[in-house]
Amino acid sequence: MSQFQPTERTRVKRLPKRGHYDEETVFQILDSGFVCHVGFNVDGQPFVIPTNYGRKGDTLYLHGSAASRMLKTLSGGVPVCVTVTHVDGLVLARSAFHHSVNYRSVVILGTARLVDDRAEKMEALRTFTEHVMKGRWDDVRQPTDQELKATTVLALPLSEISAKVRTGGPLDDEADYALPVWAGVLPLEIIARSPEPDPLRKNDPPLPGYLKNYSR
Amino acid sequence: MSQFQPTERTRVKRLPKRGHYDEETVFQILDSGFVCHVGFNVDGQPFVIPTNYGRKGDTLYLHGSAASRMLKTLSGGVPVCVTVTHVDGLVLARSAFHHSVNYRSVVILGTARLVDDRAEKMEALRTFTEHVMKGRWDDVRQPTDQELKATTVLALPLSEISAKVRTGGPLDDEADYALPVWAGVLPLEIIARSPEPDPLRKNDPPLPGYLKNYSR
Repeated sequence: MSQFQPTERTRVKRLPKRGHYDEETVFQILDSGFVCHVGFNVDGQPFVIPTNYGRKGDTLYLHGSAASRMLKTLSGGVPVCVTVTHVDGLVLARSAFHHSVNYRSVVILGTARLVDDRAEKMEALRTFTEHVMKGRWDDVRQPTDQELKATTVLALPLSEISAKVRTGGPLDDEADYALPVWAGVLPLEIIARSPEPDPLRKNDPPLPGYLKNYSR
Repeated sequence: MSQFQPTERTRVKRLPKRGHYDEETVFQILDSGFVCHVGFNVDGQPFVIPTNYGRKGDTLYLHGSAASRMLKTLSGGVPVCVTVTHVDGLVLARSAFHHSVNYRSVVILGTARLVDDRAEKMEALRTFTEHVMKGRWDDVRQPTDQELKATTVLALPLSEISAKVRTGGPLDDEADYALPVWAGVLPLEIIARSPEPDPLRKNDPPLPGYLKNYSR
């Protein structure tokens, strides 16, 4: 199994059992989501901004309007942190202290590269669309040259990276197990409700298959 | 309606219609979630770490192990950014370019204060528990002095803050409405599955009411 090399900055120190550095775990977490939180500095002030992403191989792509402050800042080749988090459940212990959350997260450190090659940019845009909804790209109108120009795409190498995962039930203090307190896990899940067709539709076909049983 | 004053750093510039600065919108977004992403710097490198939070009035509380690198760093009074994001749906347009996401997010800038007063610390811990699951605090064993000592609590004032919200269907280019492409919104929602009792239970009571119809 391919492994990432943890660095002093990405190694999970305090609860080392929760740290994972294998490609399979890291990629599964990245591929299960589509919204990340991007951290960067402006004049020493950290900003954390939610945005979409797509993964292709060892590269994470970010994109947005060429006018976006975040993308302008990141295009300058500054240090960035990208974090993806899934919340899987509430862990209810018998003491307040041992309450926890089951989660899977990935933290990526690095410096983003501006994608200006037309073919790579187009492929990145395909990646975003397919990452969010597999099968969608071939159905929709492709980007024009003007739209490509209005879009900034950044590539972040997946190399300084780690995952952190908590699973399972509460871990209570021995004496607390006798307390008459309900304990266990409340699983949380993201589900899709019924698709809502655009009220402005004119010529829309029936619901595509990829929308019928959407899950992540 | 009470309003926050946007600053040069928190005003939503590129799509100003999505910016919201009223207390009602901001607090609703904060109260709907319980996991935030905290951004801070270590040696010029931004880190973005997911963690729990609770809100009481104009204060956001963060907490964790006294051994946590993040909490040690933030206790030093450095600039921090805390972001809370809810993803409400995928917006499927007729062109790849106009695809979007419906979301609600809040960005808070500021400097956290270490809570060392015992009463405020205990009240913050109650706030965390009740923020995640209303009614839980009275059921569980309260923190001991030793547990209080092992927990670092930080308070972040909610003052430099803004919300950003996208709702509604796709906004396509006029000519694209005639294309035979399904367009609309796929709503996404976090739901709770059936609670899973701790296999190690000895003396657990029946399922409490607050676990029966949990939603955020």
